[in-house]
Amino acid sequence: MNIVLLDPRQTESELWIISAKRQLEHLGTHVDVQVGDTLKVGIREGKRYLTEVMSVSEQQIQLKPLHEEPVPAKLPVTLIVAMPRPKVLRRLIMDSVTLGVEKIILLHSYRVDKSYWQTPFLQQLSHYVDLGLEQAGDTIAPQIQLHKRFKPFVEDILPTLISADRPAFVAHPYVEQRMPAGIGHACSIIIGPEGGFIPYEIDLLIKNGCQAVSLGNRIIRTETVIPYVLGRLFSL
Amino acid sequence: MNIVLLDPRQTESELWIISAKRQLEHLGTHVDVQVGDTLKVGIREGKRYLTEVMSVSEQQIQLKPLHEEPVPAKLPVTLIVAMPRPKVLRRLIMDSVTLGVEKIILLHSYRVDKSYWQTPFLQQLSHYVDLGLEQAGDTIAPQIQLHKRFKPFVEDILPTLISADRPAFVAHPYVEQRMPAGIGHACSIIIGPEGGFIPYEIDLLIKNGCQAVSLGNRIIRTETVIPYVLGRLFSL
Repeated sequence: MNIVLLDPRQTESELWIISAKRQLEHLGTHVDVQVGDTLKVGIREGKRYLTEVMSVSEQQIQLKPLHEEPVPAKLPVTLIVAMPRPKVLRRLIMDSVTLGVEKIILLHSYRVDKSYWQTPFLQQLSHYVDLGLEQAGDTIAPQIQLHKRFKPFVEDILPTLISADRPAFVAHPYVEQRMPAGIGHACSIIIGPEGGFIPYEIDLLIKNGCQAVSLGNRIIRTETVIPYVLGRLFSL
Repeated sequence: MNIVLLDPRQTESELWIISAKRQLEHLGTHVDVQVGDTLKVGIREGKRYLTEVMSVSEQQIQLKPLHEEPVPAKLPVTLIVAMPRPKVLRRLIMDSVTLGVEKIILLHSYRVDKSYWQTPFLQQLSHYVDLGLEQAGDTIAPQIQLHKRFKPFVEDILPTLISADRPAFVAHPYVEQRMPAGIGHACSIIIGPEGGFIPYEIDLLIKNGCQAVSLGNRIIRTETVIPYVLGRLFSL
């Protein structure tokens, strides 16, 4: 936790208030925060500030804002991922948020186990978004969309995300073209499930405007490939 | 598991033999392997082959090698990481191996909890190396070294890893110079602990030939920053 995310209503009075149990416990145990310390605070969907700790109790910590700090820029990327196992989903959300992905789309695919759509994690996504934001020092949550039907998404929605200056790349091992690097513009990245997209899905993605690109001959897990690809594409 | 790693002695007779419980269980439950199927096999520290399944029993699977397949190239990188929490260490090893890191050095640092050096995971590193190799389709284990004393390592060993065409980059948030991208040559990457290196450590690293470089103003967890940096540096 590198900043403390607050709701706007916690910052309405002159002294701002941290009252969430999770945050109080973290600041008490890991940071051992004391009166007079400075604390980085982000206002949900708003600005970031350096604050000074004015009082510490078990119920709340009171803060005085000192000055504004910059909120890190987002990566202009829409990450479209075949719905992974719950454990992977949790990491995927946290890492994508930490790295600044603007929009995350969870998509069904032939090799996605239908039970993955039943995981309770889907009710807790906002919690993992918060953890990612507090890790990165960001305040703006990404959009997250769920699409449980592959074909309608690829035929009706995906084309609206693609344009000449906003390509879509689907990671696919069996093509010559390499994933580009250091691109200076927005794009969509499409990551298949364990075992990959089936040929029908790859064909449909390409037919609807995606470029199939290879990441080389190592097979990388979903949760690992996402930071790897983001580091490659946005290495500017 | 995208290949099955075998020891050379399992491939000495005409028919090769899978007998490890972990591999048999995986092939039985996740792959449901049958006689006549083809199976990708790697010989530890050796070559990779496509094989045909000749027999399947609870005790062993017999394979006939069909033809050789290329072993993916390694990244010419030495990854030097402040010893992380055991849970992070496991992922760090698996991901680094999957992505092809040539050499991994686990280093002590002021902000590393001494208890981390007591974790049983350190006795199981080779298991997580195997999982990473079987994920990537690689057969060559990276070198892994442990250095429990920061100063002697940085002053005596680190300089021997650095040369004009083999720089060392230490990720550090408070510098202007950005981490380079798409470099065409070998390098060392140095990643600090949670909370970062202390100023004394950064100074000592720089004094001994490291370049302090920034990854921007997002704070990224160790396990996430490694694929992110590898994707950035080796995006050729």
